[in-house]
Amino acid sequence: MAFRGRLMSEDGLMRATTIYAERDIRVEDLPDPVLHLPTDVVVRVVAACICGSDLWPYRGVTPTPRPRAIGHEFVGVVEQAGDEVSTMSVGDFVIAPFTISDGTCPACRNGMTSACENLESFGATDRHGFHIDGCQGQRVRVPRADGTLVVVPGPVDDALVPSLLTLSDVMSTGYHAAIAAGVTAGSSVVVVGDGAVGLCAVLAASHLGASRIIAMSRHEDRQAIATRFGATDIVAERGDDGIAAVRRLLGGLADHSLEAVGTDQSMAQALGSTRPGGGIGFVGVPNGGPQLPMRQLFDNNYRVAGGMAPARAYIPELLPLVLDGTIDPGQVFDLTLPLEDAAEGYAAMDSRRAIKVLLHP
Amino acid sequence: MAFRGRLMSEDGLMRATTIYAERDIRVEDLPDPVLHLPTDVVVRVVAACICGSDLWPYRGVTPTPRPRAIGHEFVGVVEQAGDEVSTMSVGDFVIAPFTISDGTCPACRNGMTSACENLESFGATDRHGFHIDGCQGQRVRVPRADGTLVVVPGPVDDALVPSLLTLSDVMSTGYHAAIAAGVTAGSSVVVVGDGAVGLCAVLAASHLGASRIIAMSRHEDRQAIATRFGATDIVAERGDDGIAAVRRLLGGLADHSLEAVGTDQSMAQALGSTRPGGGIGFVGVPNGGPQLPMRQLFDNNYRVAGGMAPARAYIPELLPLVLDGTIDPGQVFDLTLPLEDAAEGYAAMDSRRAIKVLLHP
Repeated sequence: MAFRGRLMSEDGLMRATTIYAERDIRVEDLPDPVLHLPTDVVVRVVAACICGSDLWPYRGVTPTPRPRAIGHEFVGVVEQAGDEVSTMSVGDFVIAPFTISDGTCPACRNGMTSACENLESFGATDRHGFHIDGCQGQRVRVPRADGTLVVVPGPVDDALVPSLLTLSDVMSTGYHAAIAAGVTAGSSVVVVGDGAVGLCAVLAASHLGASRIIAMSRHEDRQAIATRFGATDIVAERGDDGIAAVRRLLGGLADHSLEAVGTDQSMAQALGSTRPGGGIGFVGVPNGGPQLPMRQLFDNNYRVAGGMAPARAYIPELLPLVLDGTIDPGQVFDLTLPLEDAAEGYAAMDSRRAIKVLLHP
Repeated sequence: MAFRGRLMSEDGLMRATTIYAERDIRVEDLPDPVLHLPTDVVVRVVAACICGSDLWPYRGVTPTPRPRAIGHEFVGVVEQAGDEVSTMSVGDFVIAPFTISDGTCPACRNGMTSACENLESFGATDRHGFHIDGCQGQRVRVPRADGTLVVVPGPVDDALVPSLLTLSDVMSTGYHAAIAAGVTAGSSVVVVGDGAVGLCAVLAASHLGASRIIAMSRHEDRQAIATRFGATDIVAERGDDGIAAVRRLLGGLADHSLEAVGTDQSMAQALGSTRPGGGIGFVGVPNGGPQLPMRQLFDNNYRVAGGMAPARAYIPELLPLVLDGTIDPGQVFDLTLPLEDAAEGYAAMDSRRAIKVLLHP
């Protein structure tokens, strides 16, 4: 198959991360990716990171029956491009949203790229039977490159790389929570969850003009970032005490709550913090299938929306804000490690020593 | 206490409807209402009606431990007004939304009058201990009249009374479903439920500019009204067959679904008929507390909103449309009876011989 560009490694091998089992993360030699389809590109990874959701298999919450490639967030430079790729060239700096989408199906045209009819996942096998690399490695084959990747106009300032990398997932996901909840100028907002996504949700609400943003957090380092991101108030209490604190601060309940955890308790916290007729945006992956209480929704006329963020649709909107310095979501990375130390990165996030870990291949 | 106007009955009695027990509806003599508070009015009922939700106690689905006044929809003429009532005068024609609200609390100011901090219900006892009449009778004391009632600029054409009466509940509720779902010009919409509310939801979607409206209905008389109200397609199938029919008609799933029943099955029908990223508006009172499956919401990025309609907030918006003939929701009344025959009206709705019954006192 024809392609433009060249293979970068001499030995045909790259270093990449594999999860073998619970708490067993290894960086090892794997075959360099090659183009399989004319719509593929191969990207050299400039920066990757570890996601809160990567901790689920790490902790054994979800099983790892056999070793598999891991990681779904990265930015990098196009190294090879299939001959049907039209929107990017070898040498372009690109951002990968955390899912692969075709950009042409009805869901993509509706801006819901995370529900693409041809959705594929990093670290999995595509529908043609070809392996798609995980993103915590040196190179990644990206199928449906035109539908998936977003080109950053170059040259790209190294200092912007962390913030660009957040557009892969956490900033796009935090933004999705705020958009789904309906945050607008003047809104009062409660953010439940102080992980990287919750912090980015604070930043998104601030960017959208919310006048009061209450970050629910019990960790001083995260409270500090939340405040830098625009939180006007911090509430450390949870449950009914947390709701009482919201009432005290706002003189009532919030217009909107953003749920960025994914448990029954966090959803109850979000619902209980919201005024009748208000909106709840949820982006925490439902952990074990909690159910929403219809009667509570009905009685309070809540609007509940959310799910897996259509990062691909949001990146073109958020990218200019990163490039011109309006938002600086890269602050969520409080630990940067070489790729070889990926296992230490997982351990640091697992023990909450780090909010989010950036990996340099 | 000072008041304007005069008592209309000589004997101090009126005829009004009481539910005694399951399937035991009686029209009987009750004391004429009097003003208790300076913010009260007494309204002479011009037309009242029976609600689908009145069938719950009628059928014994909800218990009736002791006889109580029933009915929560009416239009009428102000007969007496407390001296703090400022927005209406004796002789004014008024529409009563199905809940009583103060118009001044934060929820009311947010347009969520059905979550008023001082919400009261027709047929119940107010927080001062005074009885509030049910609406299937000759007269009703309405507390918080300024916050609750909407004056119709007179003179009022008799022919408009049925449509004005629908603003009390079913048309406002159908409109709420469409607004909550986010229906806009060009939307494709599925309406689940062919009762008066479902039919009004069709009319609301049509008024909001939906380009395709699929009414799910198995009854020819209701299908005919749905078509007159703007339904472009009728689907008689339910469950997976119904969803398949939606896919065939639209070449995919709908942008929005409006749920006007309140069962697990109807909510599943609404969710399953909606495209990823679409909106579901629900106004069916959750019957027995169904739960929403979070994982399905997350995976499809559904937006779910709804609840008890803030009719008081919608009436000023919908009233001009009725007055100028843009909408004619009164077509949902397919049986008109004298008040004395209220029991027959309940029986007709219970057996589905009637969609909705109008009562003339």
